[in-house]
Amino acid sequence: MIDLKKTQKLIGEATPVLGRESVPILDAMGRALFEDISVVEDLPASDISALDGYAVCQTSLSGVSPSIPARLRVIGESPAGKPCNAIVGPGDAVRIMTGGLIPEGADTVVKLEDTKEDKGFVLCGADPGWGKGIRFQGESLKKGEVLLHAGDIISPLEVGALATLRRAHVCVYRKPLVAILATGDELSDFHEPASLAKTMCSNLYALAAQVVEAGAIPLILGIVKDDLPAQQALLDEALQADVIITSGGTSKGKYDLVHKAFASLGMEMRFSNIFAKPGKPTIFGIIRKKLIFGLPGNPSATMLSFDQFIKPALFKMMGLHTVFAGSTRGNNDPFAHIDSFNPEQGGNKEHHRASQVPLGNRLSENGRHQKQRSQTNLSSGRLKIVAH
Amino acid sequence: MIDLKKTQKLIGEATPVLGRESVPILDAMGRALFEDISVVEDLPASDISALDGYAVCQTSLSGVSPSIPARLRVIGESPAGKPCNAIVGPGDAVRIMTGGLIPEGADTVVKLEDTKEDKGFVLCGADPGWGKGIRFQGESLKKGEVLLHAGDIISPLEVGALATLRRAHVCVYRKPLVAILATGDELSDFHEPASLAKTMCSNLYALAAQVVEAGAIPLILGIVKDDLPAQQALLDEALQADVIITSGGTSKGKYDLVHKAFASLGMEMRFSNIFAKPGKPTIFGIIRKKLIFGLPGNPSATMLSFDQFIKPALFKMMGLHTVFAGSTRGNNDPFAHIDSFNPEQGGNKEHHRASQVPLGNRLSENGRHQKQRSQTNLSSGRLKIVAH
Repeated sequence: MIDLKKTQKLIGEATPVLGRESVPILDAMGRALFEDISVVEDLPASDISALDGYAVCQTSLSGVSPSIPARLRVIGESPAGKPCNAIVGPGDAVRIMTGGLIPEGADTVVKLEDTKEDKGFVLCGADPGWGKGIRFQGESLKKGEVLLHAGDIISPLEVGALATLRRAHVCVYRKPLVAILATGDELSDFHEPASLAKTMCSNLYALAAQVVEAGAIPLILGIVKDDLPAQQALLDEALQADVIITSGGTSKGKYDLVHKAFASLGMEMRFSNIFAKPGKPTIFGIIRKKLIFGLPGNPSATMLSFDQFIKPALFKMMGLHTVFAGSTRGNNDPFAHIDSFNPEQGGNKEHHRASQVPLGNRLSENGRHQKQRSQTNLSSGRLKIVAH
Repeated sequence: MIDLKKTQKLIGEATPVLGRESVPILDAMGRALFEDISVVEDLPASDISALDGYAVCQTSLSGVSPSIPARLRVIGESPAGKPCNAIVGPGDAVRIMTGGLIPEGADTVVKLEDTKEDKGFVLCGADPGWGKGIRFQGESLKKGEVLLHAGDIISPLEVGALATLRRAHVCVYRKPLVAILATGDELSDFHEPASLAKTMCSNLYALAAQVVEAGAIPLILGIVKDDLPAQQALLDEALQADVIITSGGTSKGKYDLVHKAFASLGMEMRFSNIFAKPGKPTIFGIIRKKLIFGLPGNPSATMLSFDQFIKPALFKMMGLHTVFAGSTRGNNDPFAHIDSFNPEQGGNKEHHRASQVPLGNRLSENGRHQKQRSQTNLSSGRLKIVAH
């Protein structure tokens, strides 16, 4: 048996980072940027007003106060979104809205509250100071500046920033397609009749949910019987995916054919700890650069193995090198976070009774709704996971 | 101006909890159960083997040891997934696989490692004790037991549990549809030509991303001009949604028509703090039980207002009363978590310069990838959000 650190290292080394995909910015949420995002144009693109008021030359305001206002001629209007052709000289004012273009000659905006307009003139009772009330060209963003970096993870703030830069689509790392199948003559699926001898293949769905939670795409291939040709055929089909997960059939029993089926497809075995005691019988290998994980059939062991071995690999594939940084600040290795394996919880082939792996009401116990991409908490709470 | 607590109370009181929706269990991830889930059948449904070995009567094993094994006749096999008709008496054994049905008469399973089969007989060198190696009917789940409760939030563990109970679909709270529109003649969208006088309507996309992050469904209605009939028409269309968010047009300027448009559609105004200074001009009201939020146009103020006012309402609509429990342990009020409003960050109508609301690299700073349903972190890091 090889130890957990070694197995994670083997998986990490064999895991490729996937390529790019261009997606609408909303679909990029939670995903890692594939490219740096640079500012293509100054923002604002020209000098605009930061408020509603009057654009003036500051020289027109010298010595004003509420009791001694300047009286300026209103020569035009600069509403938001429209060009303004007025040229402001001393003694002139242009009515301006937030976002309106600063007219030629103006260098200051007096806010509406400090003014009173009447019959073509406006009284300005305050001098805000030169340049006040103006957002100057490039003040927010300078052309050429790198605003977002490859590897950054997209949240609503980044979506807003991308939209501001007029990026409707953006390149992110592609999501891995993860084929999932369960082996065992004792299993049945939703559409099949229940019988005393059959157990629901719940692992297919729990694993698919873990894949979804990790941000990847599940491809549920269903149940395959304990039959070598059938397993070979389905595994061959599964090789369209980036990752293949099988559940069950990795123990030493008579009908355990999965690793034979893997081997017949040319798998390079990277590790197999199926003979370990206490053990979590897991196989890891590579077929044509695809990652192959043979997990145990015990539900809690399956879910724990996913968290320990597969989730970090999926994160690496998606360029999410930092998602585990919480417990390993500054460490970019998605495999570095994984807890040590606890044989009491991992289950093994010889589970004498149903594994009682409880689920916390994680929301109230952990205090945060951090399901997505958090380590699945298998160790506290109320719901017990039931073995096949 | 009314204070933040009061506004949140008003919103909370006006917010309905939405009804049910039956969805495939994978689509229920992250959502709240609408119903209790009871066990409809014992699990296991009958006594089954917990391991590979031999099913025997324990009385056949009295006094055995590795050096003095019992020699039992192998009278049949009970593989997983198939019925077994053998009847086990003293001196008999049935070869059995993990998950195989315990044959009549057997009360104990001797594990494979303690046995040696040869020519129709098996030597058993250990007595595991009565009942060992068996998972008895109902041992994992008893018929009638409530396994999951209304309000529980679905994670992979719950998906696995539902599949185990043969629940392919499950009723969860429906997701609110959230119409989003931006007002302002100065705005342009992706498909429109950029010009000096126009600003990209980035708020539409940032808000949609926040809606997605909260688990609800955005309906981006686009830009509406500063024109009363146009605003009335689009708002009327928006009333198909559960929630309407407008961005911009809530300040006192000349072209600020949004609240007139709201009023003309019969909105009961619940609060309006647009005359507050320093202020976050936000309108909240109700039209035909739909929640109407008029948010400021400043991007950071918009996002902050969403977090403070709208996200808790969306959570309540979806039955997610506990998602904020982190900072208010045991408090089921989704509005209880909200931070006090910080006028330095919320922006106001008179933002003299681009709001510099930085975004942390939350993954490395906060240590966890808790984007989904976490409070948007507007206060640390690197990316600045740029004002219109």
